[in-house]
Parts: sequence; C-alpha cells; structure tokens
Amino acid sequence: MYNYPVKRAPYNKPKISTSNRGMKFEEIINESNEQYLKRDIAVIHKKPTPVQIVEVDYPKRSMAKINEAYYKTPSTTDYNGVYKGYYIDFDAKQCNSTTSFPLSNIHEHQIKHLNDITRHGGIGFLLIQLTRFDEILLLETDKMNYFVKRKNDGGKKSITIDELRESSYLIKESFPIRVPYLDAVDKIIEKMKEKSDN
Amino acid sequence: MYNYPVKRAPYNKPKISTSNRGMKFEEIINESNEQYLKRDIAVIHKKPTPVQIVEVDYPKRSMAKINEAYYKTPSTTDYNGVYKGYYIDFDAKQCNSTTSFPLSNIHEHQIKHLNDITRHGGIGFLLIQLTRFDEILLLETDKMNYFVKRKNDGGKKSITIDELRESSYLIKESFPIRVPYLDAVDKIIEKMKEKSDN
Repeated sequence: MYNYPVKRAPYNKPKISTSNRGMKFEEIINESNEQYLKRDIAVIHKKPTPVQIVEVDYPKRSMAKINEAYYKTPSTTDYNGVYKGYYIDFDAKQCNSTTSFPLSNIHEHQIKHLNDITRHGGIGFLLIQLTRFDEILLLETDKMNYFVKRKNDGGKKSITIDELRESSYLIKESFPIRVPYLDAVDKIIEKMKEKSDN
Repeated sequence: MYNYPVKRAPYNKPKISTSNRGMKFEEIINESNEQYLKRDIAVIHKKPTPVQIVEVDYPKRSMAKINEAYYKTPSTTDYNGVYKGYYIDFDAKQCNSTTSFPLSNIHEHQIKHLNDITRHGGIGFLLIQLTRFDEILLLETDKMNYFVKRKNDGGKKSITIDELRESSYLIKESFPIRVPYLDAVDKIIEKMKEKSDN
C-alpha cells in the first residue's frame, strides 16, 4: 500500500469562538448582574420562573414540600431593575442559526410588555446571543417593533443576522463583567436626554 | 324561671371595618396593579414566588411536571415596575397588632435591596396594611431606615402604630383602584424634583 500524497483543498475553519462553551447565556447575564450589584453600578435581577403549584404537603410544621407543580408562561420579561434612575427591562434570547433570528422567539406578551414599559419611560430591549458567532447584541424595543410590524404586514417571519447586526448594539464580552450591556444602555440614555432637550 | 332584667355594661364595638374581609392584601394590590396597567397609568407586577426545583418529570414530551420543590426566600421585594419614568419597588406587609409593627417583619435582604434601589434613583417603600384598623400606609425607605437604625442601636424592636402613622402616607381605599398607592408616589416624586431643583 502506498501513501499517495493527496492534495487537499485548504480547510477554512469557520470563525466560531468557543469561549462561552458550557456556560449558558442566562448564567453569564446573572453573573454580570451580580458584578453590577457588587460594584454598586446597578440593581438588576432575574425574576423567578413562575410556577403553578397544585399540591403542597407539610411534612414538618415549618416546611412546605411542593408535590405537584407546572411551569407557567411568564407574563413579562425575565430581567428588570434600576440603573442611573432609569427603569431597565429586558429578555434574553439565544439564536443558534447562522442566517436569521425567528420572530417566533419573541412572545406576544413580551412584545406588549416591552412596549408598555417603554411608553412609561423605561428602557426595554432584547439581549440576543448569536451562539454560532459568539456574539451578543442588544436590540431596542423600537427596532424590534419595526421587524414585528413587517411580519404582521405579511413580510418576513424573521430578522436576518445582517439586519439584526445593523439594528443593534454589539456587546463586547469583557472581564470582570462578562456581558457589559449597560455600556449600550448608556448610549440609549444619551439619546433619550438629547430627545428631551429638543 | 324568671327573666330578670340584667343591666349590662355598654358594649363599645371597636371601630374595625370589615370591608376587606375575605380579600387578602396581596389580592387587592394585584387588582390595583391590573387597573393601573389597564388604564395605562403604570406597569407594576408582582414577581413570582421563587421555588427551588428538585425533581422534574416529563410525562409527555411537551410537558414538564415538577414532583418535588420547595419555597425559597425571595432575595428582593415582591413588586416592581415603572411609573412616570421612575423605577418603583416595594413589599407588602400585613400587621395584625393594634399597638405596633414588629421590625422582624422586614427581612435583612429586603432592607438592603430597598436601600440599593433608592441609592440608584428608584422609589422604594413598604405598603403596610393595619388589618385591625383596615388602614393602609406607605412607609418610604428613608423612614424605615430610621426605625431600623433605632433598633440596631439597641432601641425598640418595633414601630408603634402612632409612629407608623406619623411617618407614612395614608392610602385611602378607593374604587376602581382599591389601593391607590401611586397617589402617595406622586408626592414622593414632587419631593424628589424639589430636591434636584435645589
């Protein structure tokens, strides 16, 4: 048997970072919020997952044991809190596609909630992790509304990754605050101030 | 057998209203928040009760059934949201005593949380229902701090009802918004504006 030298086509390894491998998006956001809290920068917490409790037992007087319960659909977003006097509210989404972000990922009640809080002077957005590109984007409520409206008007049911990048703030992973999304919120606050000054 | 006329001491029925009988404090707050939302006045929600999930079953592919779980102590307060651009954050407490409100009702982490959010420009308070007087009071973080400090300095472990009334805003029950606590928040906002103008 001979070992013929085989000329292979050069193999271009796709530029997909793996630095977040094994750490869930939710976890790095929670960790960032802990850092923000510890450094006294902002107070932002994840809300508990709502659970419908069906049966509770009291094996001891002081302890309740839940024997039957089910996950409920949250009626709002997952995260909220306060930063520089502003009400902050957002949801975290993961996108595994390399081409587009399906709008079905955003629930109807979340769209309503983000619009409610924006109308009352809060700052609402989605934090979207493009897992295949290891990229985190912040999409404001207004920009999200544009794509939701396009869909409702009979257009595309998703946002292409290119469109998403053009409409969002890029959140560069950092240390010790892994997801420093408040940097982008600072830019949003500047915009709000300019608007109210005019 | 004779029916002797018996002279009874006049019985002074205590002035305790029963209009809320059967309706829990939490329920009338939730109802008020729904009204505020429906009327587009504010977006304030109760956070779900945190639950530590130990065992989950999947009887159907699409359905998760929680078989063992326990209540966790919340790390924050129960309610938060946005009103007139301000971050609002509070906890609801019931007091069944006719003489004093025990400070042990306010958990250490809630005191910390209310101070955190106040320092960052949010509006934090306790809504206290004096069940025996059918009276609802709003106690701001700063005023709460005064009594907590007094306790920590070796003073009283409770707030007398008179002190509480003097330090709080009275929330008069109303209709259709049963607990119109945002009326008192309006006064707090006015105070904040005056302060920042000076």
